[in-house]
Amino acid sequence: MNKKILLNKRPHGKPTRNDFKISSEEVPIPNDNEVLLKTLYVSVDPYLRGRMNEAKSYVPPFELNKPLQSGIIAEVMESKQADFKKGDFVSGNLEWKEYQTSNGKGLHKVTQNEAKLSSYLGVLGMTGLTAYLGLTEIGLPKKGETLVVSGAGGAVGTVVGQVGKLLGCTVIGLTGSDEKVDLLTATFNFDHAINYKTTPNLKEAIKSTCPNGVDIYFDNVGGEISDAVVANINKYARLPVCGAISLYNETEVPVGPRLQPIILTKSATMRGFIISDFAEKFPAATKQLSAWLKENKLTSSETIVEGFDNIPQAFIDLFEGKNKGKMIVKI
Amino acid sequence: MNKKILLNKRPHGKPTRNDFKISSEEVPIPNDNEVLLKTLYVSVDPYLRGRMNEAKSYVPPFELNKPLQSGIIAEVMESKQADFKKGDFVSGNLEWKEYQTSNGKGLHKVTQNEAKLSSYLGVLGMTGLTAYLGLTEIGLPKKGETLVVSGAGGAVGTVVGQVGKLLGCTVIGLTGSDEKVDLLTATFNFDHAINYKTTPNLKEAIKSTCPNGVDIYFDNVGGEISDAVVANINKYARLPVCGAISLYNETEVPVGPRLQPIILTKSATMRGFIISDFAEKFPAATKQLSAWLKENKLTSSETIVEGFDNIPQAFIDLFEGKNKGKMIVKI
Repeated sequence: MNKKILLNKRPHGKPTRNDFKISSEEVPIPNDNEVLLKTLYVSVDPYLRGRMNEAKSYVPPFELNKPLQSGIIAEVMESKQADFKKGDFVSGNLEWKEYQTSNGKGLHKVTQNEAKLSSYLGVLGMTGLTAYLGLTEIGLPKKGETLVVSGAGGAVGTVVGQVGKLLGCTVIGLTGSDEKVDLLTATFNFDHAINYKTTPNLKEAIKSTCPNGVDIYFDNVGGEISDAVVANINKYARLPVCGAISLYNETEVPVGPRLQPIILTKSATMRGFIISDFAEKFPAATKQLSAWLKENKLTSSETIVEGFDNIPQAFIDLFEGKNKGKMIVKI
Repeated sequence: MNKKILLNKRPHGKPTRNDFKISSEEVPIPNDNEVLLKTLYVSVDPYLRGRMNEAKSYVPPFELNKPLQSGIIAEVMESKQADFKKGDFVSGNLEWKEYQTSNGKGLHKVTQNEAKLSSYLGVLGMTGLTAYLGLTEIGLPKKGETLVVSGAGGAVGTVVGQVGKLLGCTVIGLTGSDEKVDLLTATFNFDHAINYKTTPNLKEAIKSTCPNGVDIYFDNVGGEISDAVVANINKYARLPVCGAISLYNETEVPVGPRLQPIILTKSATMRGFIISDFAEKFPAATKQLSAWLKENKLTSSETIVEGFDNIPQAFIDLFEGKNKGKMIVKI
C-alpha cells in the first residue's frame, strides 16, 4: 500500500492533527514518459499554512481531500522517461505520498556526491535561495552594515545570518529560546542573538545591541517582534519581507502600529518577495551557496523527524519553533 | 517694521493659531556678500507639521521662539553679493519674515518669463519634483497600469495624477470633497475621482473603479484611506510613501491593519522618500516639467491666500483640505 496525506479541513487558527488525514491507495504504475518516485525526504515550511486557507495567497490554495504538496527529495524506482533512470535522486514540488508518478516536469536531478541529499531541501534548495536572494537582491548588504534577522533559528534565518556575515555585516538574530540563542552565536556565526520571549523590552534591547541602528531587517515573522526592529531602522533601511509566521494563524485581521510614518521619515524600502520572483538568478545563487558549503563557510542545520505519518506534526511544530534550522521529515 | 512669525509652542495634535506668534524687528541691513530679500510668496506644506514636534523627523525640529521656515519666493531689494542684483527674483528655504538678509547660499534665481513666479513653489518647485520623481523613481509607471493617488486634490496629488496620465496610466484620485472630485476629472485629467468622505465602503469603491487592480499607490495621507487602497494592490505593486497627512496630528501611535502579509503575498514594494533623496535628478526632472508646462500638458493649480499674518491659518487649513492644489500665501 501507498500512504498519502490529505487536507481534511481548512485549519482555523493554529493547525491541528485533525486538519490532516492519512489515507492510502495502490502504488501507481508509471505510463509512458513517466517515472515512479519513492519519497525520501519531505520539507515542511511555514508558507504552506497560507495555502491551507481558502483565500488565494502566493499560489492557489490546497484542495480539501486532496494530497498536500511541498518540496520533496525522491528516488526514481522505475523510469519510462528519457531524462531519468532508475536510482536517480530528484527534487521537486511533489505530493505527500510514499510513492507517486511524475512526467518529469519540475524535477531536478540531485547527487549525493555534492552534498547530503536533504541539503537540497535546505541550504542548496528553496531555503538557501530564499535567504541568499532575499538578502542580496532586496537587503542590498554593504560591508559594515547592521543586519537584524527574525526567525533567526529557522531554516531561512540561519542561512541569512551566515550569508550576512560572509558579506561583512554585523548580524543580530532574534529567536525564541536560549538554546537557539547559543546555537546562533556558537554555530552560525551571528554576532549577537536575543531571546525575544524573555527580553522585557525588545525595542530597547535591539537599540543597545545595534548601536549604529539597523540598516537591513530580514523579516520572517511580522507582528510585535517586527515592530521592535522597525522602531530602530536607519535612514535608507531595506526590509525584505520573507515571511510572517507570527501572523499566519491569526483569525482576525492583525493590527499594529502604522508603518507609513517611519517608512517615510527614514526613506526606507519594505519589499515582499516569493523566491520565484528571482528565478533567473537561481543558477548563480546556487553556485555561490554550493561553493560556500564546500569551503565550510556555510553550516547547514536540520531538524530531522522520522516517519511518513509524522509529516503533519512536524508542520504543526514549526509554529512552536521546535525546529532548529530546516525542518525535514525522513521517510 | 519687519514682521516675522515664530513658533510660540509645539502643537499638540492639530495646530492652532496660538501655536504661532507674530512679532516684529527692524528691517535688517545686509553685510558684505549679503542680499536683502523681500518676501513675495510663502509655501505652506503639510510636512512642516513634523518639524514642529520636538522629535527629529526628516530634518531638525523648528526651535521655539524662532522664525519658522519654508519655501519662499523673494525679490532682491539690495545686493552686496556678486551673484544677485537688485530686482532679481529668487526661491529658497527662507524664514517667515517680511524682510531678511541672506548670503545667497541655497538661493536659486527664477524668472517671470518662463512661468509665473508662484509656480516655482508649485509645479516647478519642490512640489512638482516630489510628484514627478516619487512617481517615476519609485512608482515606475508603465503604460496601461492603474495608478491611485491619495491627497489627490493637494499640491503634489494634482501633479502626480497629471504626470501619471502623461505616462499612459489610468489614474484614480481620492479626495475629500465633491468639488475637488469635479476638479480632478474636469481640470486635471484624472480618469476617476472618489470622495472618500462620502463613500460608505472605500475598499469596494476602489475595487470597482480599478477593475484591473492597483499597480501603483502614490500615498500622501496614510491611515484608513491607505488601508482601503492597499487591500486592492496587484502583484508587484509599488507604493511610494510621500506623506501621511492623516497621521501628522495624531497624539498616540496610530494603529491599523498590519501591512506585512499583503506586502509579502503581493511581492509589493513600499518605499518612503524625501525629495532630497533624488537631488541629482532635479535638473532633468525640472526640464521635463517645464516642457510639459509650456506645452500646456500640465495645469498648475494654486490656492492663494493674501497677507503675511495669514500664513499660520493657511498652514492650519491644509489639514482641513481647504486648498485645491498648492497652498501659497501672497504677501
